[in-house]
Amino acid sequence: MSIQQPTFELRDEDELSLELIEAQYALKQSRDKKNAKSVLVLVSGIELAGKGEAVKQLREWLDPRYLRVKADAPQLLSNNQTFWQSYSRFIPAEGQIVVMFGNWYSDLLTTAMHVSKPLDENLLDAYVEQMRAFEHDLQNNHVHIVKVWFDLSWKSLQKRLDEIDASEQRWHKLHGLDWRNKKQYDTLQGLSQRFTDDWFIIDGEDGKLRDQSFAQYLLQTLQELPEHQTKVTQKWQQAAIPKALLEPAQASLEKEDYKDELRKLTKKVADTLRYDERKVVIAFEGMDAAGKGGAIKRIVKKLDPREYEIHTIAAPERYELRRPYLWRFWSKLTDSGKITIFDRTWYGRVLVERIEGFASTVEWQRAYSEINRFEENLVDSQTVLVKIWLAISKDEQALRFKAREQTPHKRFKITEEDWRNRDKWDDYLKAASDMFKRTDTDYAPWYVIATDDKYSARIEVLKAILKQLKAD
Amino acid sequence: MSIQQPTFELRDEDELSLELIEAQYALKQSRDKKNAKSVLVLVSGIELAGKGEAVKQLREWLDPRYLRVKADAPQLLSNNQTFWQSYSRFIPAEGQIVVMFGNWYSDLLTTAMHVSKPLDENLLDAYVEQMRAFEHDLQNNHVHIVKVWFDLSWKSLQKRLDEIDASEQRWHKLHGLDWRNKKQYDTLQGLSQRFTDDWFIIDGEDGKLRDQSFAQYLLQTLQELPEHQTKVTQKWQQAAIPKALLEPAQASLEKEDYKDELRKLTKKVADTLRYDERKVVIAFEGMDAAGKGGAIKRIVKKLDPREYEIHTIAAPERYELRRPYLWRFWSKLTDSGKITIFDRTWYGRVLVERIEGFASTVEWQRAYSEINRFEENLVDSQTVLVKIWLAISKDEQALRFKAREQTPHKRFKITEEDWRNRDKWDDYLKAASDMFKRTDTDYAPWYVIATDDKYSARIEVLKAILKQLKAD
Repeated sequence: MSIQQPTFELRDEDELSLELIEAQYALKQSRDKKNAKSVLVLVSGIELAGKGEAVKQLREWLDPRYLRVKADAPQLLSNNQTFWQSYSRFIPAEGQIVVMFGNWYSDLLTTAMHVSKPLDENLLDAYVEQMRAFEHDLQNNHVHIVKVWFDLSWKSLQKRLDEIDASEQRWHKLHGLDWRNKKQYDTLQGLSQRFTDDWFIIDGEDGKLRDQSFAQYLLQTLQELPEHQTKVTQKWQQAAIPKALLEPAQASLEKEDYKDELRKLTKKVADTLRYDERKVVIAFEGMDAAGKGGAIKRIVKKLDPREYEIHTIAAPERYELRRPYLWRFWSKLTDSGKITIFDRTWYGRVLVERIEGFASTVEWQRAYSEINRFEENLVDSQTVLVKIWLAISKDEQALRFKAREQTPHKRFKITEEDWRNRDKWDDYLKAASDMFKRTDTDYAPWYVIATDDKYSARIEVLKAILKQLKAD
Repeated sequence: MSIQQPTFELRDEDELSLELIEAQYALKQSRDKKNAKSVLVLVSGIELAGKGEAVKQLREWLDPRYLRVKADAPQLLSNNQTFWQSYSRFIPAEGQIVVMFGNWYSDLLTTAMHVSKPLDENLLDAYVEQMRAFEHDLQNNHVHIVKVWFDLSWKSLQKRLDEIDASEQRWHKLHGLDWRNKKQYDTLQGLSQRFTDDWFIIDGEDGKLRDQSFAQYLLQTLQELPEHQTKVTQKWQQAAIPKALLEPAQASLEKEDYKDELRKLTKKVADTLRYDERKVVIAFEGMDAAGKGGAIKRIVKKLDPREYEIHTIAAPERYELRRPYLWRFWSKLTDSGKITIFDRTWYGRVLVERIEGFASTVEWQRAYSEINRFEENLVDSQTVLVKIWLAISKDEQALRFKAREQTPHKRFKITEEDWRNRDKWDDYLKAASDMFKRTDTDYAPWYVIATDDKYSARIEVLKAILKQLKAD
């Protein structure tokens, strides 16, 4: 993981500025093109080492209109929010450069240095591993990551502290650490060495060289941005299609029995969801007309609409396409409350996007592990994830399509596109099979539910929720 | 303000559903077209009157994919956040319908009913007036507002409280009010009468009629959405061009004096900004090459980039165009910290958008009062707004344009568009003059600063900030 530390020498400032601007414009103009990228610069380091100065200088050399600087005060990592949650909205879009002072590493350091509850080193290492995995996924989704650590010796730090005035001191103090405390300084240096081996380290001693090193390192990065990976290296192992998809017919339920059981289960589901301390995300996928809407209706039957939010996922908008494909789900989850239901999900990447070619082969093949990591982060953050695939037979789908076409107020549910998707029935079965094989995890298993009999399907959905919430 | 209360009768559900879906699709298809609208439904009322049920039923009759329901827990109105701030992100885009349970009125009621610090009635009335003004602006910007109050008699409320089970009761209790308390019920009814005269009131007694009244009222609204106003009713009174714009030349400052004063002032500005308890928004407008970038650089000279955020405003993106033109500024202000600098601003509406015809005559003429209200809300919410116009003479601009073209690392600052804007010099002067006349308010005055002499201009900018912060 460790990177070779480049060294830089002072250059003519105007020339440097010109090259930076040219590189910045090249990035900007890549937008919507083949190798479009964005650049996310994570900046951390010792207080007063000059990261603020270096970013300010960069802003003057670059075209400041296309450089966004985000600086949120560091916050403690919490066990009910993923480390990326509060930053995800500011992940740059293609063509953009964002500098983040406040970032998951500054949160990690703040947490690790917390006076009353310092983080144990194993936990810190585990976090670092997760963060790197997240960044790896960002990189693959065209967000290039640059990590720069500004270092400063104890002696210089003390000297600078002597020299700054009251107003500045006051502001720096807001960052919470006591930089006069040698022990704390040493602890921080020790901790930082556990994750900065893949960072570019800048010595804050000499201001001019510091600013130029930072700018030149960014310039070098911009000039050497890798092309998107397009080559598939491994032969794809198509999963066998499980019987549950090929023959989804199931025992039918009598209307009377259904009604009784439905009454009991809707109540139990509502109570369970209400009393559970965790957030719950219920994710629906399945063929058209398999009954997602009807299932959702029964889940929320005994809930008030203020208790849940339902997201219906359609094709992404242009501004969403300029970011990692999971981005729009990150932001929906950030805004959401206790119970969130997705009518179609992030699995679109390995279903419709795979089949229609909206995602390249490399992209959809990579998506399984990206999705697994995403879901693992959620589950680790006090979220229960219930993933449900509604399976229907091809004959039953045809019957429902026709019934919809004949019912005026249901006609909106059926479009030309549904018939086109039906033509790709086998492709969807294959894609779904691969999806089950690769994303049916301990922490977020799939529930495949046959729906040719609507009554029993709805009951099974409710049972699946209870099961995943360990309330069955 | 009071509206006529329509009455509805029970209709065939399938027919109603069909008409709702058709109206919803018509709305959706209006997107990007001439009379595109969005609909924002504000729902409030007595607990257990059935607003939740009615929204759930609506969701079943409509195409749920295009109906978003937002329900944030009510929060106390605070004196350092505008009442619309936390909701602004969820203002629907053209073609969308959003139902908001949690909204500025529920916050107002919660605040008014606050046990230890109930809101005085005059203040409540003042809030209602502001909220209506905000809604009026939303309407004009194509967000149609529907306000529905669900009512329930004391007797029925008590009966329903007797009947609900523990789990539901627990959830309803989270809303904070004690619905068993007659005095509190009466107070709430009294308060609600101070603002619901322009709401549609639904009696929650009969569930079926309640749900249908709600749905039919929305249907009626959707079917009768007004066309955009395009007719200009009054003759426009063009303001005279002030001398400060026609002859912006000013006494020049010697480099030595400039340096001394700059040192003192940048320090004082930094300290003042830091110590002020309020948020500060600094807004720059002015002709191209008037020195906005240089002025900003001096403002932040003694600040750390973590203390401020700079937004450079370019043309809006498509998803931004689908919302009120102020929307993108609302969201930037919601995310922003203590000090926010805008390089170009919401005044684009009455400058470039007016001149280039991106805003219709009705739209830009209306914008002055919309902007004034927006700024007043900000200033009332513990924000200082410093508005600065940098004035330059036409000759000086030409010199700077040419200098930029001849300096490689400054060439990016000058484009074909800048030359085209220069051809419209007189239009910009006129637009700026109208802007000063109509938006130079007590709470947010304009500072017009001549910039032909760069040194004195930068000093004047710093002084203007100190003046507006009452620190000069």
